[in-house]
Amino acid sequence: MYRFNCDYLEGAHENIIKRLVETNLCQTPGYGADEICFSAKEKIRAACGCPDAAVYFLVGGTQANYTVLDSILRGYEGVLAADTGHVSVHEAGAIEYSGHKVITIPQKNGKVDPEAAEEYMRAFYADATNTHMVRPGAIYVSHPSEYGTLYTAEELRRLRGVCDRYGMRLFLDGARLAYGLAARDTDVTLKVIAEYCDAFYIGGTKCGALFGEAVVFPDASLSPCFFTEIKQHGALLAKGRMLGIQFDELFSDGLYERIADHAVGLAMILREAMIEKGYEPYNDSPTNQQFFIMDDEKLREISKKAVLDNWGPMGEGKSLVRITTSWATPHEAVEYLISIL
Amino acid sequence: MYRFNCDYLEGAHENIIKRLVETNLCQTPGYGADEICFSAKEKIRAACGCPDAAVYFLVGGTQANYTVLDSILRGYEGVLAADTGHVSVHEAGAIEYSGHKVITIPQKNGKVDPEAAEEYMRAFYADATNTHMVRPGAIYVSHPSEYGTLYTAEELRRLRGVCDRYGMRLFLDGARLAYGLAARDTDVTLKVIAEYCDAFYIGGTKCGALFGEAVVFPDASLSPCFFTEIKQHGALLAKGRMLGIQFDELFSDGLYERIADHAVGLAMILREAMIEKGYEPYNDSPTNQQFFIMDDEKLREISKKAVLDNWGPMGEGKSLVRITTSWATPHEAVEYLISIL
Amino acid sequence: MYRFNCDYLEGAHENIIKRLVETNLCQTPGYGADEICFSAKEKIRAACGCPDAAVYFLVGGTQANYTVLDSILRGYEGVLAADTGHVSVHEAGAIEYSGHKVITIPQKNGKVDPEAAEEYMRAFYADATNTHMVRPGAIYVSHPSEYGTLYTAEELRRLRGVCDRYGMRLFLDGARLAYGLAARDTDVTLKVIAEYCDAFYIGGTKCGALFGEAVVFPDASLSPCFFTEIKQHGALLAKGRMLGIQFDELFSDGLYERIADHAVGLAMILREAMIEKGYEPYNDSPTNQQFFIMDDEKLREISKKAVLDNWGPMGEGKSLVRITTSWATPHEAVEYLISIL
Amino acid sequence: MYRFNCDYLEGAHENIIKRLVETNLCQTPGYGADEICFSAKEKIRAACGCPDAAVYFLVGGTQANYTVLDSILRGYEGVLAADTGHVSVHEAGAIEYSGHKVITIPQKNGKVDPEAAEEYMRAFYADATNTHMVRPGAIYVSHPSEYGTLYTAEELRRLRGVCDRYGMRLFLDGARLAYGLAARDTDVTLKVIAEYCDAFYIGGTKCGALFGEAVVFPDASLSPCFFTEIKQHGALLAKGRMLGIQFDELFSDGLYERIADHAVGLAMILREAMIEKGYEPYNDSPTNQQFFIMDDEKLREISKKAVLDNWGPMGEGKSLVRITTSWATPHEAVEYLISIL
Repeated sequence: MYRFNCDYLEGAHENIIKRLVETNLCQTPGYGADEICFSAKEKIRAACGCPDAAVYFLVGGTQANYTVLDSILRGYEGVLAADTGHVSVHEAGAIEYSGHKVITIPQKNGKVDPEAAEEYMRAFYADATNTHMVRPGAIYVSHPSEYGTLYTAEELRRLRGVCDRYGMRLFLDGARLAYGLAARDTDVTLKVIAEYCDAFYIGGTKCGALFGEAVVFPDASLSPCFFTEIKQHGALLAKGRMLGIQFDELFSDGLYERIADHAVGLAMILREAMIEKGYEPYNDSPTNQQFFIMDDEKLREISKKAVLDNWGPMGEGKSLVRITTSWATPHEAVEYLISIL
Repeated sequence: MYRFNCDYLEGAHENIIKRLVETNLCQTPGYGADEICFSAKEKIRAACGCPDAAVYFLVGGTQANYTVLDSILRGYEGVLAADTGHVSVHEAGAIEYSGHKVITIPQKNGKVDPEAAEEYMRAFYADATNTHMVRPGAIYVSHPSEYGTLYTAEELRRLRGVCDRYGMRLFLDGARLAYGLAARDTDVTLKVIAEYCDAFYIGGTKCGALFGEAVVFPDASLSPCFFTEIKQHGALLAKGRMLGIQFDELFSDGLYERIADHAVGLAMILREAMIEKGYEPYNDSPTNQQFFIMDDEKLREISKKAVLDNWGPMGEGKSLVRITTSWATPHEAVEYLISIL
Repeated sequence: MYRFNCDYLEGAHENIIKRLVETNLCQTPGYGADEICFSAKEKIRAACGCPDAAVYFLVGGTQANYTVLDSILRGYEGVLAADTGHVSVHEAGAIEYSGHKVITIPQKNGKVDPEAAEEYMRAFYADATNTHMVRPGAIYVSHPSEYGTLYTAEELRRLRGVCDRYGMRLFLDGARLAYGLAARDTDVTLKVIAEYCDAFYIGGTKCGALFGEAVVFPDASLSPCFFTEIKQHGALLAKGRMLGIQFDELFSDGLYERIADHAVGLAMILREAMIEKGYEPYNDSPTNQQFFIMDDEKLREISKKAVLDNWGPMGEGKSLVRITTSWATPHEAVEYLISIL
Repeated sequence: MYRFNCDYLEGAHENIIKRLVETNLCQTPGYGADEICFSAKEKIRAACGCPDAAVYFLVGGTQANYTVLDSILRGYEGVLAADTGHVSVHEAGAIEYSGHKVITIPQKNGKVDPEAAEEYMRAFYADATNTHMVRPGAIYVSHPSEYGTLYTAEELRRLRGVCDRYGMRLFLDGARLAYGLAARDTDVTLKVIAEYCDAFYIGGTKCGALFGEAVVFPDASLSPCFFTEIKQHGALLAKGRMLGIQFDELFSDGLYERIADHAVGLAMILREAMIEKGYEPYNDSPTNQQFFIMDDEKLREISKKAVLDNWGPMGEGKSLVRITTSWATPHEAVEYLISIL
């Protein structure tokens, strides 16, 4: 039975597996001090148009979020996020564990609305009691968002403006970044992200790698001892070259974009087919995660033949359902799913 | 140039690589809720003689140490360790980051001496000011220790006694456990460890795996929500089955013991050859890490042909050197090293 | 110019000052191990009807909240609170600093609605992803609430039920408890609180003391090492008897109730006079904090003659205003305020 | 029975009590935003010769230590201290609770030896594995030390040099600072301390106040949001003027020096008398804490008539004993103690 419930069901792209096999018995220094990591970092710097960026490889997304935020926030600062943000909901309190409050504002289309962020900060500084409150020191955005939606370059520029006006940093969680970059009509490129964000990560786990997220600080001086902080947060991989391999392959010959393009293409085919068949889209996601409001009975029936992701009841016998394609989804699987809808 | 400076230079045992390749495009649920993880855990329970143990897979050693200790310590407790313990020295303060003091006592042959631990606790409870001090809530031991040495079953039993008398838990860091189990003349087996310890981990990263440590709680009720704590500590791997693969292979057909036996065998050959050639052993390590006090000039000469691990000056133009074999070390490499000594 | 903006403007009740003066040069052991503290604790136990309760004296309210919650929550648990709760808004992130998420639900009349709490917990346990979320381990209530409102005994009983059903603890912040106990028509007594709550504190700072909050654990075994946790949180007062004096006096001859009765009586006089004069009450507070929606122009005028507490704009040229009486408010001050309204 | 076991047995100097009584019913804004606090801060700035210093009032010493250190250390830094330092031993792990390791070096006469600190840092930066270790970000000194001893101005200057060379901050715990300033022959004044330290506190609790420590940042920009950090650490006193009163009185008409001079004078009388009577001094303390090695039998006998502080067995039937005078010790008490020795 084919699974469409998330984008981390399979292993890694064959190029990565091949490289793992080929280099398996090579001896390299640990903790990322090896040539493969150096090469991968150089490719990422080039792709971001940031020759001086600091690049670090971490293992997973929550780990990247909480290690980076803990590094770039001062001890008394919190992070502003959408109430649907991954850091707000699904990280088991990792951000709070590191001492920082996640301050939420209502999401707008799954995103932090720049105006809402500006208004929050304006009100914060207008509040006479704000020295008794948690000052937001950063804005957290996920791109694509948890609902598959994307920021525009203009929205990122405006969030940058909010950050500049209120002494905050802008952090972008790119767990599914490849699928965002591959979306039709987006104007957000890696270079745009590197221009507007103080820190971000390029997701590997959900985008073709076995595991791994590449954290980028366009200005390396923002976090001068990040290596030690990685270790301190239990996030340092001994055999660091394994992470280098993931990104050295993903950033060779446009692989990262190519495999995401495949997934997004399938998602668009599925989306159009579902709309045509009368299914009600929940939102307008241009990426590999598609959200539909489905009749519970229908959902039960389909679930006998394919695994979808039920996000819970929407009332009136309907549920919100997420259907996800990935770099590994075969064309036939989508065709089959359409055939049983 | 062959490297003997540590035991995490290569990838993984070929069985693991083979399994990774074979299962690469399988779809399995994330976060360890897959059949491979279930199988691996069952094999570990059997090997430990603990059918009811809780087993969790984490990615690395520092991560395992700080997540487990934070789980089994109460908020106001610290952990008692040898001053040479990994948690004391080389974890960038991860234990303190999680709020717990590492309380050190002088190492004895790289280990926590049961009598010294008893004496520390006796004095602690005799101190009228101890409510202003950090109460040790656990004893941390590494087996093999950072100096390659091993506890005896009797020593573990006595540490267990200290823990019982003072309401403490016993935690064993098994980053190199395979090499300890494979040592000649040791009476410490996995079952002995499971009998005396409240929590321990079976090292994968340094013992044949790409990465991964298997945390075992012989009594699962000690840490009933450990899964959430893993997530909270940024330590949950999305594609959890990758960790299952490591341990399902390592615990098939005695692979874990077999590859360690190989490494220890080579270490013993090297050790004897070095002593025969007049090198001064620093201690009596029965495992894959060998420590010698070497003349700096000689060391420089050898270092042109092989990479050893210099642990720093010992005075009189000599240094402490660590030479490490592993599951991946070829017989020829050791022969070559002996030939150039 | 008389201030009505809060209830911690003056020093302490004269009995406390007198005792401070009388005992000033006595020598007593530090950290609360003195006869005055013992006496005060005994009186509190009696007042709560809990002969076996553990009582501790802390200096301030935020300190009490974060030290107690950190003690009674497990490391991975958060606390459920109203979005207007003091721990949610005005403690500069102290709860998050100690590693715990404050999980908010919308306030209802300034309080945690038992049904809303039940519904939150029901939904939490129905959510298949809840092992990736922060589990609420306690419910935080403030009584009186930040809006002067009070729980009924029945509401506390129902919150206790929610806690019992979901394995949670109930914690009551009694920063202004005296004013709650002195309210007309309340059925919540110290004994009721001690029956339903796992931990609570009896406020001193805002209720006649120079400073000090008395933390009560009706079942002492809930937090067996709380003294050390007080020290660990920087909350232990060296000259502990100073805190003993506050509570030994407040709990002698019904002083705690008597002075609060005075403040509540004045608040009721003020409330009725304002309503009679056509001012719009914001809510129905039976305690010493009164909330009115006032015309901004009128507010500016009054503010030339008395200090009120402006809680911010309500639209249409109006603001929410808090007017507070206290144990120290003279009758004449209230008469004067009424005369200038 | 007179107590000499510590210097926080009594209340406060009569001037402070008098001011408390006089101002008791005054209404002032909370949290230190009152004229008395402003005045006290101004006096402290003048006494330190730092017109631009930031001054904050905290309640106790451990609270001051852990709040200041947490503020001036980066998240991954630890603090270097003598193994006898208060932060190392008697703060129940408050520093570790805030995430920072206390890195100890052997005390020398109760102090951090500048050469030992320099050597520690030199070795740290020479260690190839130091990115896996906790970097000391500050040096903690207590003046007087826990053993009553004092730094010289030259020693502080040299510690400043170590800090400058290695990018560290210098923090001085002045819990008993008055007694240090009043010592005969010391060349360390408040101005010297303010010149060499990045942060320090002027102890009130043990030096004539009911409670309170005045934290001074000679360069206010070192900790720009310290007020919020105080709140976050549960350390903000609502009725802040109580702290202002302590220091406004202590820093009027030389009271702080005068009362300490009294205590030190008595300590010197006692010291000389004891030496004359053949008691063995443990060290050469020029301040109000005197340490002697006493015969256990003799100690038991004296303890029937006066309370001394037994610091534990020294072998051969002897114990280390601390005898403390304070601002409140009457001349007669010392005479009596001498008479029974």
